[in-house]
Amino acid sequence: MNIFDSIVKPTLLLNGAAARANIQRMAAKAAAAGVSFRPHFKTHQSREIGEWFRPHGVEAITVSSLDMAEYFAGAGWADITLALSANVRQVAQMDDLAGRIRLGLLAESPETVAALARGLRHPVDLWLKVDTGSGRTGLAWDQPAALIELARQAAALPSLRLRGLLTHAGQTYTAPGPAGAAALFATSAARINQVRAALQAAGLGPLLVSVGDTPGCSALDRFEGADEIRPGNFVFYDAKQYLAGACRFEEVAVALACPVVALHPERGEAVLYGGAIHLSNDALAWQDGRAHALAALPEGAGWGQPLPGCAVTRLSQEHGILSMPPEQLARLRVGDLVCLIPAHSCLTAQAMGRYLTLDGHWIEMMRA
Amino acid sequence: MNIFDSIVKPTLLLNGAAARANIQRMAAKAAAAGVSFRPHFKTHQSREIGEWFRPHGVEAITVSSLDMAEYFAGAGWADITLALSANVRQVAQMDDLAGRIRLGLLAESPETVAALARGLRHPVDLWLKVDTGSGRTGLAWDQPAALIELARQAAALPSLRLRGLLTHAGQTYTAPGPAGAAALFATSAARINQVRAALQAAGLGPLLVSVGDTPGCSALDRFEGADEIRPGNFVFYDAKQYLAGACRFEEVAVALACPVVALHPERGEAVLYGGAIHLSNDALAWQDGRAHALAALPEGAGWGQPLPGCAVTRLSQEHGILSMPPEQLARLRVGDLVCLIPAHSCLTAQAMGRYLTLDGHWIEMMRA
Repeated sequence: MNIFDSIVKPTLLLNGAAARANIQRMAAKAAAAGVSFRPHFKTHQSREIGEWFRPHGVEAITVSSLDMAEYFAGAGWADITLALSANVRQVAQMDDLAGRIRLGLLAESPETVAALARGLRHPVDLWLKVDTGSGRTGLAWDQPAALIELARQAAALPSLRLRGLLTHAGQTYTAPGPAGAAALFATSAARINQVRAALQAAGLGPLLVSVGDTPGCSALDRFEGADEIRPGNFVFYDAKQYLAGACRFEEVAVALACPVVALHPERGEAVLYGGAIHLSNDALAWQDGRAHALAALPEGAGWGQPLPGCAVTRLSQEHGILSMPPEQLARLRVGDLVCLIPAHSCLTAQAMGRYLTLDGHWIEMMRA
Repeated sequence: MNIFDSIVKPTLLLNGAAARANIQRMAAKAAAAGVSFRPHFKTHQSREIGEWFRPHGVEAITVSSLDMAEYFAGAGWADITLALSANVRQVAQMDDLAGRIRLGLLAESPETVAALARGLRHPVDLWLKVDTGSGRTGLAWDQPAALIELARQAAALPSLRLRGLLTHAGQTYTAPGPAGAAALFATSAARINQVRAALQAAGLGPLLVSVGDTPGCSALDRFEGADEIRPGNFVFYDAKQYLAGACRFEEVAVALACPVVALHPERGEAVLYGGAIHLSNDALAWQDGRAHALAALPEGAGWGQPLPGCAVTRLSQEHGILSMPPEQLARLRVGDLVCLIPAHSCLTAQAMGRYLTLDGHWIEMMRA
């Protein structure tokens, strides 16, 4: 049976073969480059998809919440970095988990380091969060004094095993293309190594450097200055990554199948059942404005090429408005399915909560 | 015990007294204006909160998905309008539900009406979706020929009880204030009544008019030209509605409590554990850009006034960046909780999946 016949409402499709190939490729690249591969599991959030990494020798992972760490620890993952500055209100729960697995935590302030030292009975790996230019979080790379002070504080505490410096070069997500992402990655790596050298000179080290962002890791084959990479989004990629040249369209592994509920040729729009609660309302730059997804049509057991000139340009809670040139709109009928390629697959997966593979098998995700 | 002591991670707080007062006020207003009140339950999506409407005589509700209709039918609601253009791929499930409750559906195309007629064995109420200016979905008010044709088609089909015309004046959400929202509401009502008159002149009727949007319903006391109102967001309101003057700050009934994980005085920012997967990344106009939430501090058993000049200006998957003037930032410590007033409470509630009342009771929502 064709899976599309069974779909009556917004459904997140997963091309498992594409996802497995994405995993294989990134793992092979990390191995060839001689860096550790600690993939971020926040994108898929699924025990079953997590298993697809094991044949490639992956034993250590990254997550973005303690709940997610618990979920994957329950699936047998025994070396997990929680790559969000540690939330000191969860010290008791982190300590409990640290008694069961090797847990890595992040800190960027003396208050956090002190609270961890007070609250943890079991040792954890500690990474200092460095801001190499994304301006989101972490201590600024160009003010090493604060990092030296934090490293000194941590190094003196027996429950904290100071492992290294960690950054997320989120700025690569706005790079215009692979060369730009590679350049930003290189700048970020150079900056964090400058911090490493300053710490080394202050007698603190040796320290590892952990980096990770899908655009940079996709653009590069070598990861100069990094000991570990932590990309996550690459497992599925998405419309942003495709348009930025980080992947080929065939490498995008998820699409949201949505029924057409109305057609408005007079304004070049189809109304889809599928809105912000399904796609998330993350957006990418599109023509003169923003779009939330590209669109394709079902084709065989999957979806075809992106429909030229078509994008979801507006979302409400349950509706998506798909802007289409007349010749594309003419191909649709009320009740058809359209496969939306989300701007940002991590948030769409989170919103949908499970996947339907192209061979008709449901894959569950963690539910908070 | 103070509920804040028990909160270790992003938690959606519900001020039940404020929500009940919002319900009471809107129900009383509808009664005084002599219109039916069919509140939209997509905002709270909770059986327990649904019960708060019953003492005010509410027996008919609005929902935005068939799953939601099933959920509330299971809680004893027997008159439900599914206010999204009917998805013809779900005709069999709609028919099944229509055998158990009074179900209202929307149509805006002959294909949909024909598919409903073919697939339904049980009668349903049918509403024609009219676009009175929002440009989202529905048939354009100023082209009544298509509406007349659709009404003729529906009126001839025994399984479809043609009830009336329905619009959602979504344009009021961008009105600069209550007077603007009231004016847009009035324009929308005048337009849909023009359609009603055209249909009446064509021998189609009598037809009811159903309207509903929180800004308009909050701004007005009388609902000229409407037989039924369907607001939803008013049960909680949110930062958008507060800033647009649709409610007082004390009437906002939900806030997302988030731990502070880092402070960056050098750039006037606090980093919160609480991101797009908790708040949703809906936004409102803020200073020169956009913001995802306002911020307040815990105060007694609830939250205080909005912190001046403070807003969540950036979100990633799990982080929120709270921009703060120095004197506000100086009040925070790592590990404190901040109460975020979401830009759009419907999407935050959907993302969080449950509520913690200020007296420490968990309220569950429907889970898809």
